Amino acid sequence: MTQRWYVGIDIGGTNLVVGLVPEEGGAPQGLRVRATESERGPDAIVTDVVRMARESIRDVLGVHHTSEILGVGVGSPGAVNRSTGRVLESPNLGWRDYPLRDRIQELSDWPVVVDNDANCATYGEFWVGAGHDARSLVGVIIGTGIGGGIILDGQLVHGASDAAGEVGHTTVNFAGRRCACGNYGCVEAYASGPNIAARAREGLEAGAESVLTELVEGDLSRITAATVYEAVVDGDEYATQVMTETARILGAGIASLINTLNPDAVVIMGGVTRAGDVLFHPLRGEIRRRSFKVSAEACRILPAALPETAGVVGAAGLCKAALEGRNG
Amino acid sequence: MTQRWYVGIDIGGTNLVVGLVPEEGGAPQGLRVRATESERGPDAIVTDVVRMARESIRDVLGVHHTSEILGVGVGSPGAVNRSTGRVLESPNLGWRDYPLRDRIQELSDWPVVVDNDANCATYGEFWVGAGHDARSLVGVIIGTGIGGGIILDGQLVHGASDAAGEVGHTTVNFAGRRCACGNYGCVEAYASGPNIAARAREGLEAGAESVLTELVEGDLSRITAATVYEAVVDGDEYATQVMTETARILGAGIASLINTLNPDAVVIMGGVTRAGDVLFHPLRGEIRRRSFKVSAEACRILPAALPETAGVVGAAGLCKAALEGRNG
Repeated sequence: MTQRWYVGIDIGGTNLVVGLVPEEGGAPQGLRVRATESERGPDAIVTDVVRMARESIRDVLGVHHTSEILGVGVGSPGAVNRSTGRVLESPNLGWRDYPLRDRIQELSDWPVVVDNDANCATYGEFWVGAGHDARSLVGVIIGTGIGGGIILDGQLVHGASDAAGEVGHTTVNFAGRRCACGNYGCVEAYASGPNIAARAREGLEAGAESVLTELVEGDLSRITAATVYEAVVDGDEYATQVMTETARILGAGIASLINTLNPDAVVIMGGVTRAGDVLFHPLRGEIRRRSFKVSAEACRILPAALPETAGVVGAAGLCKAALEGRNG
Repeated sequence: MTQRWYVGIDIGGTNLVVGLVPEEGGAPQGLRVRATESERGPDAIVTDVVRMARESIRDVLGVHHTSEILGVGVGSPGAVNRSTGRVLESPNLGWRDYPLRDRIQELSDWPVVVDNDANCATYGEFWVGAGHDARSLVGVIIGTGIGGGIILDGQLVHGASDAAGEVGHTTVNFAGRRCACGNYGCVEAYASGPNIAARAREGLEAGAESVLTELVEGDLSRITAATVYEAVVDGDEYATQVMTETARILGAGIASLINTLNPDAVVIMGGVTRAGDVLFHPLRGEIRRRSFKVSAEACRILPAALPETAGVVGAAGLCKAALEGRNG
C-alpha cells in the first residue's frame, strides 16, 4: 500500500519547522527548520513555510508523487479561530487578525487546517510521543510563557471560543506576582523561563550567594533560565533551591488540573525539562502531596518525548482529525 | 405516544430525594424527600430509596404502568466506580467499598446506573436547568465542601478513574489555609460553608465589629455561613466584606477553570447562592479581571435553576446517557 502523508507546519516565535508525517503517525520526514524572523511580517513567513513544505515533499516523495499528500496542518502561536482559520492575535509574532489558513491555502493543493501551537505540541505528544498510550492528557509547555493543551478521551478540548488550554494561567497565589496576562499569581508568573530567571535574580539582589553571579560575570541582568539550569548542573545550592521552588509552584498548578480532570498523564514540555530530576523529583512529590490519591495514582508525570518536532507532528495529526470529522 | 420515564435517586448527606424524570428531560414528578440519617447504614438507605421510588411510580403512573420506566439513575456522595457500581469511599455517609448499584439492582426491575452526586447535580443543571443551552459547562457546588462537575461538548468528564470534577480542590494560595483534603490553599479551604463561617469568626476574634456577634448572642462558635448571609441581608459591613472576599477567592479558582476549559457557562449551586448579588457581583468582576478576555466573554456565570432537584434530574439524565452508550 502506498504510504500517505500529512504536511506539518509549526510556526514558532523562534523557528519555523516543517516536515511530512506518516498518515498513521510517526517521526516527521524531510524536516526543514529556519529562523522565524517575525519582523518580516506574516506574508513572508507564509511564503517561507510553503517553500519549505515543497522541499520536504520533494525530499521524501520525489517530484511526481504529490498526490500522496492528504492535507496540511499548521500550528500558530496566539489565539486562532479554527472555523475562519484566522490568527486573531499573536503577541509573539506581532500578528492581528491575519487570515493564515487562506494565505497558505492559496499556495497549496491540499486542504489546510490551522490550530494553536500549544494544542499542536500537546497533540503530537499524545499521538506518537510521551503520551501515546494515554486516553486523556494535559500538556504543559514551559518557555517564554506557559501554555498547554488538554486531551480528554482522545479528543483535544478547544472550548467555546478555541481558547481552552491556558494552563499557565491557573492562579496559584491570588495575591501573588503580577503575570504578563494581567492577572496576579498565575503559575506562569513564577515558573516560565523569564520568571525563573527573575526570581533567581531577585534572591541574589537580596544577598543570596551562588555560582550564578560568576556565570554572568556579575551582570545579573544576563541571568536566564538556562543559566539557572547550568548552575544546578554545577551543584549550586541556591540555583537548586530556585528550581525546587519552581517545581513546587508548578506542582500546585498541575495538582489543580489533576484534581479537576483526572487525566492519565501530564506531559511537561520546553527547555525547563533539561533540568531533569532536579525538576521532576520535587514536582512529582508536590503533585502527590496536593492531589487526591486516586487521581495522583492514575496520572504519570512525563517529560516530553519529541522536544523539537511535537508541533509538526501534532499539526499534522490535528489536520488528519479535522479532515476525518473528529475534534482532534 | 406514551410518556416514558427514568427514576432519579439523589442520596445526600442530609436528604434522600427521589422522583420520576421524563425521558426527554424536565421537572421531576412524584417527588419524595426524607432525612438520610446515615447512621442507619447503607442497607437501610437502599431499602428507603427503593420504597420511595415505588411510591413515586405509583403516584405518577398508577399501579399497572411500570413498563414505562426505562432505568434508575442514582447519585451518591464520594468516590464512585461507575463500572463496578461501588461507592469506594464516602466520608459524608461513612461508606467504604459499598456495592450500591448491585444492592439497588436486586430490588429493581430496571437497569441501575450510579454516579457521583456532584456530577449528577451538574448534569441536571446542564440537561434542563441553568445551563440547558450550553454545550460545555462547569458546575461548582458550594456546601459543606466544594464539589463540582465538568461537561465538555455535551459529555460529562469522568476522568481516568471516575474522579474528575474536584474543582473545589484547585489551589488558589499555595501557602494558604489547610484544607480538609490535606492540601493547602484550596478554594474549599476559604469558600465552603464552614470555611466562610470560620473566616468570619476569625475576623471577629481579631476585633472586627459586626451584627454577627449579636445574631449568635456572643457565642461565635454558633456562626454558620447562613448567619453570615443573614448579616449581609441586614446590611452589615463586616459580613458583606467576608462575602466579597469569598467571592474574590472563588473568582480566582473559577477564572483558572475558565482559562483552562473555556466553557460556555459556570453554574454556581448550593446555599451560598442565596447571597445573590452580594456574591455574584464581585464574583463576576473577579472572574473578568483574572481570565482571558475571549474566554471571560464566552462564559456566563449563572446561579443554579434547580436548587432542590438537580441531583434527581441529573441522575436520571446520566442513566439515560449510559443506557444510550453515551458518556453523559
